[in-house]
Amino acid sequence: MSLPAENMRVVLASRPVGEPTASDFRIETAPLPVPKEGDLLLETLYLSLDPYMRGRMSAAESYADPVEVGAVMVGGTVCRVLESKAQGFAAGDVVLSFSGWQTHSVADARHVRRLDPKAAPVQTALGVLGMPGFTAYAGLLQIGRPKHGETVVVAAATGPVGSAVGQIAKIKGARAVGIAGGPEKCAHLAELGFDAALDHHAPDFEERLAAACPAGVDVYFENVGGKVWDAVLPLLNTYARVPVCGLVAYYNATAPAEGPDRTPALLSRILTKSLTLRGFIQSEFVKDHYVHFLADMSGWVREGRVKYREDVVDGLEYAPSAFIGLLNGQNFGKLLIKVAE
Amino acid sequence: MSLPAENMRVVLASRPVGEPTASDFRIETAPLPVPKEGDLLLETLYLSLDPYMRGRMSAAESYADPVEVGAVMVGGTVCRVLESKAQGFAAGDVVLSFSGWQTHSVADARHVRRLDPKAAPVQTALGVLGMPGFTAYAGLLQIGRPKHGETVVVAAATGPVGSAVGQIAKIKGARAVGIAGGPEKCAHLAELGFDAALDHHAPDFEERLAAACPAGVDVYFENVGGKVWDAVLPLLNTYARVPVCGLVAYYNATAPAEGPDRTPALLSRILTKSLTLRGFIQSEFVKDHYVHFLADMSGWVREGRVKYREDVVDGLEYAPSAFIGLLNGQNFGKLLIKVAE
Repeated sequence: MSLPAENMRVVLASRPVGEPTASDFRIETAPLPVPKEGDLLLETLYLSLDPYMRGRMSAAESYADPVEVGAVMVGGTVCRVLESKAQGFAAGDVVLSFSGWQTHSVADARHVRRLDPKAAPVQTALGVLGMPGFTAYAGLLQIGRPKHGETVVVAAATGPVGSAVGQIAKIKGARAVGIAGGPEKCAHLAELGFDAALDHHAPDFEERLAAACPAGVDVYFENVGGKVWDAVLPLLNTYARVPVCGLVAYYNATAPAEGPDRTPALLSRILTKSLTLRGFIQSEFVKDHYVHFLADMSGWVREGRVKYREDVVDGLEYAPSAFIGLLNGQNFGKLLIKVAE
Repeated sequence: MSLPAENMRVVLASRPVGEPTASDFRIETAPLPVPKEGDLLLETLYLSLDPYMRGRMSAAESYADPVEVGAVMVGGTVCRVLESKAQGFAAGDVVLSFSGWQTHSVADARHVRRLDPKAAPVQTALGVLGMPGFTAYAGLLQIGRPKHGETVVVAAATGPVGSAVGQIAKIKGARAVGIAGGPEKCAHLAELGFDAALDHHAPDFEERLAAACPAGVDVYFENVGGKVWDAVLPLLNTYARVPVCGLVAYYNATAPAEGPDRTPALLSRILTKSLTLRGFIQSEFVKDHYVHFLADMSGWVREGRVKYREDVVDGLEYAPSAFIGLLNGQNFGKLLIKVAE
């Protein structure tokens, strides 16, 4: 393998106001980075695009520092080792890294995880067998704790988190109700074994959701907020659990939501229904649960009990437009950028 | 003891719109009820007045059925047995009952608990050693779970729930910050051992609260809502726990709160700070924890580690005005109506 001359990368050009636009990103080239002792020079094969990245584009306080303007956009990647200056790694190895939106990078070998291409397609380490799958697994099982026969509702249900939530709920004996945008996605939910699929574009979405949950809702895995949350809240049963994992409906908001202020109504509902709302980031659960996740989820995928769908876009230069589409629900399955063969 | 001729009782005359007024209650007399086999005829000694009763006056769906218009207002009571038709009880026994706002009542003996007047003043079964004390104990220890050195904030802190929350927090090694209305109540919080006392009437209340919580807030025991909640929310640390026990600031609301709608901001905060909000009613915890509560709390009261203060109003006819005052924070300590000697 001869080394390429340059690194191509996507940097944050400006902080978006509302929905990100192409001009908030800039494609640059830079010299290939040089690995030090203990480092690996990596070539990105797949870049994962995920909703949390919208938060990193803003300066608002959150659980992680924002991307600086001019810096490479962050993101999980599957990479091939081009050059190893670390014991235990060799050129040609495939690793899980967090190299961001670029074709090449240098990583401390202690911060990557080697992948076995024979065990599973390597890009699943960014989806069903990676962060999104673990988000579903930890949030549903540690916070949602569905019991046999209970009803679990999840939105963005054809996405990598939502589809895993619904399928794990089924494995645990619960009823899975999925919400997605459009008939094609809803049809896919039936293929995944969801008990009901709701199109949030339907004008009578609220009524349909209520009809699909005749025994109420025991677990609502919250990853969107907005009108889905409004429709679910009145259906929540006493002692219902709401793992709050994401709120993509609000990520592009530029102004406070129209009144009245429904905070008192929400708190009152929490009180009178003994609800649990619990925000979480998957990293909180890694130490205690990641090993179990890898074992459980790998088994479920092998046995065909958890299926996954990928939406692969070819070429790093399309990452900005694909990401903008992701925030609008235009992807269908786990969104990946194929950066190199 | 000769039996009196009549029962005096306070019934719900009309459902209040906003703040209850005297005309929402009606004082009636009725014939003395007659005990059947297994029953006790009771004379009320003390009636407990508690904020939850406001909810029972409304027809809105809640965790308990509303009081019907024309029916006796509900409430916990300490009563003397006038006549026993049940094994194991005799005239003169003192029992904890749920007889409501009336001088006399009949109760199934299986639904009362005998009190030992030598163990503690009997009316403490309505306060520190009763439902309010248990609400504090269960909500703080099962949901709030304060760790040594953490900061616990509670409002209505001189009330029976709030004062127990703060003192139990201290016993568990946490820092207790109490919020109350007026300098006299704040001075009392210092006597109870709170580390800081804040007057919510202060024009710079938010700034003072922030200054009193230099390490943020780990547990906020929510019993008021409103502007206290607004002041606490930005101070909540990552992984903070919020047992939602009451929302007295909203109980008299007649119109939706002024916009903008802050629901998205609240959910976003829950997400980015990995907060837990958990509504609860103490009854959920009775089976597993009441015995431990009675043992722990009786010991703490005996040892002087938990102090309590009572605000006793003499005469059932003053129950409506005392209750209206309670919703405005006019009581100072556990509000009791002394119905008979």
